[in-house]
Amino acid sequence: MKYAAVLGYGTVGSGVVEVIETNAELIAKNTGDEVKVKYIVDIRDFSADPHADLFVKDFAVVEADPEVNVVVETIGGLRPAYDFTKRALLAGKSVVTSNKELVATHGAELLKIARERGVNYFFEASVGGGIPIIRPMCQCLAANRIDEVFGILNGTTNYILNRMIEDGLTFEAALSEAQEKGYAERNPAADVEGYDACRKICILSALAFGRHVYPESVETDGITKITLEDVAYAESGDMVIKLLGRAKRADDGKIFAFVGPHLVPKAELIANVNGVFNSVMVRGNAVGDTMFYGRGAGKLPTASAVVADVIDACQHTDKTKYFGWEDSDASVVEDSKKFVSAYYLRVSGESVSSAVTEAFGEVKFLSREGAKANEAAFITGTMSGYKLEEKLAVLSKSCTVSAPMKVLALD
Amino acid sequence: MKYAAVLGYGTVGSGVVEVIETNAELIAKNTGDEVKVKYIVDIRDFSADPHADLFVKDFAVVEADPEVNVVVETIGGLRPAYDFTKRALLAGKSVVTSNKELVATHGAELLKIARERGVNYFFEASVGGGIPIIRPMCQCLAANRIDEVFGILNGTTNYILNRMIEDGLTFEAALSEAQEKGYAERNPAADVEGYDACRKICILSALAFGRHVYPESVETDGITKITLEDVAYAESGDMVIKLLGRAKRADDGKIFAFVGPHLVPKAELIANVNGVFNSVMVRGNAVGDTMFYGRGAGKLPTASAVVADVIDACQHTDKTKYFGWEDSDASVVEDSKKFVSAYYLRVSGESVSSAVTEAFGEVKFLSREGAKANEAAFITGTMSGYKLEEKLAVLSKSCTVSAPMKVLALD
Repeated sequence: MKYAAVLGYGTVGSGVVEVIETNAELIAKNTGDEVKVKYIVDIRDFSADPHADLFVKDFAVVEADPEVNVVVETIGGLRPAYDFTKRALLAGKSVVTSNKELVATHGAELLKIARERGVNYFFEASVGGGIPIIRPMCQCLAANRIDEVFGILNGTTNYILNRMIEDGLTFEAALSEAQEKGYAERNPAADVEGYDACRKICILSALAFGRHVYPESVETDGITKITLEDVAYAESGDMVIKLLGRAKRADDGKIFAFVGPHLVPKAELIANVNGVFNSVMVRGNAVGDTMFYGRGAGKLPTASAVVADVIDACQHTDKTKYFGWEDSDASVVEDSKKFVSAYYLRVSGESVSSAVTEAFGEVKFLSREGAKANEAAFITGTMSGYKLEEKLAVLSKSCTVSAPMKVLALD
Repeated sequence: MKYAAVLGYGTVGSGVVEVIETNAELIAKNTGDEVKVKYIVDIRDFSADPHADLFVKDFAVVEADPEVNVVVETIGGLRPAYDFTKRALLAGKSVVTSNKELVATHGAELLKIARERGVNYFFEASVGGGIPIIRPMCQCLAANRIDEVFGILNGTTNYILNRMIEDGLTFEAALSEAQEKGYAERNPAADVEGYDACRKICILSALAFGRHVYPESVETDGITKITLEDVAYAESGDMVIKLLGRAKRADDGKIFAFVGPHLVPKAELIANVNGVFNSVMVRGNAVGDTMFYGRGAGKLPTASAVVADVIDACQHTDKTKYFGWEDSDASVVEDSKKFVSAYYLRVSGESVSSAVTEAFGEVKFLSREGAKANEAAFITGTMSGYKLEEKLAVLSKSCTVSAPMKVLALD
């Protein structure tokens, strides 16, 4: 028998307890050992819950109980999750988490402590919810040098963009709807400003390239400035707008890492990932392109990933998995203005077409129904962010220019 | 240091040697141990190969060398692969394979021997080439009851169908081209008749449901009868034709398992999987739908999966992974005529529309440019295969009817 303690009885934590109970027989069969929840730590009152007898308010009870093999941290945020995680690892217990903020901020340190104590720190659920992505990347692609990883890492923004694209809702209307449906928080900044996707691309970068990429080093842009005009222009070029987190090996050994809205050609599989689903593309030097798809959030999908980690931790109580994730600093992240890409721009002003051609040379103009006479949108040739700035400096003398969006082009 | 022996120096075998060498440093870093190829077993003459000194012609050399930890079987087919695999396992060596025919035919038995000898039998590359699918299904979704698994399991047929759909090539022309490009064998039966996909769905079924599903129990249909007329009719219904292997938990605990061409609505992500790519959808009771996508064949992608297994085997020399795959017999497979589905039918005859309506009641008629007056194609309501047979008996009194194709409908 192996014992787990669940910290935080919110959506994910209660889902973990549910999955462990519902699929108990199956889990025992798959692992050759039973897994039981011994404690649930939450300071709120759950005396009416069917699991009332499992609740304790003080983490110290878990910390001091040598029977607990695995601590499941589903509190979220940095405090007190960081402190509890450290104490659990130091007490010789493996820790499993869905907390992307904590992993993106303190992953390297926590993995180091786990290694020193001979236990495991697992975080499959921190990226892509229920989608198996971290274990496949680290284990199944272990024979590959990974060169690039990118994806739709936030279901809420993908849902909002989808409603704008498919049904013509404005950003504001789509956001309100997502809030009503419980996909978006009342304060939606973490989703719509791209912070959530940023944390996830940090985790994926660290796993792909072996060095911690800190969120504050990652240029992050959200979807709040995207209009239905942009959606229509993209459509005329057979493209859709997706919020992507991207990380790529740069030539000098550094890492390009950024988050922002992209125009994605519909012919790319990832353009067809709709609704609240997430999708991560991993490019290896042997395997080529692989993609992983599924529900990026939600009680049971996230719990599915957490419980898989619990099972793995219970099977490897004597062995620390090595993720090849070392600490690092901001210098590991390449200046994102060196990244070469084509860009989408929407501009307005007098003699707009000739102003565009003067600044950018030949471009691909897009069209939309009902476009104003002094308005244009186009796709540039490929260039660095520095080159783009130069050309924008010329163009913005005579025109108003929207925030540029990159165009996804896979070699 | 861990030592591997590679059996069969064909496309995959030579790819394995290449990946182990190219990514040696990375593999050592990821695993904490070096992996070296000690022998290559092949009866052909490779005296001019840079690895000439590694070649031996007699498997007994490998079998008798206690230093060899892992045997990589990339011979393919049943003989002598079956014999060598058994002998390697009995000699206490783990075996890694890309041989789907062997796994689909003798998987339960070989896994049992591995368990008894305390070694591992791994076969990630046997389904979906380089796509991580077997390990994710068994490990990452270990907390799920898997209810359904299906996918595009053969890249050659997907390429052929794609050329028919996108470029209007006939089946014969697309097949010839696939042969010229080296995607299809000179004898293409294993691909175009669905046998290859059948072996893969057997392996996926066994892993999903825990019981060996033998290829001969699986109703298997290929793509040789598909015409450009069918492609055009599907298009008019916003669908594409894909060869799918499918396995689903039946209500009575048995397993539906079959292979055949399907009409797939373009709104489904899997409809957008093009070219030689493969894609497997797994549906779990906690995670919901997840999909895995990548190159289903090819030297380096397949080698990528094989070498990941080699690494795993080297890391677990003291522990047998349990796949929950038990032996079984034909009785585990549910009568596929009990499967409920909508069907696509193409018919010709006098007063064809009224004949259709008389036999099937209300249906959804499809259209195509240049259709003959006495021709029709339509989608039926959902019904069992038995019900379909009854209705076809009525319809075929007055009309000629094409082979029915199922329509993929996800709940």
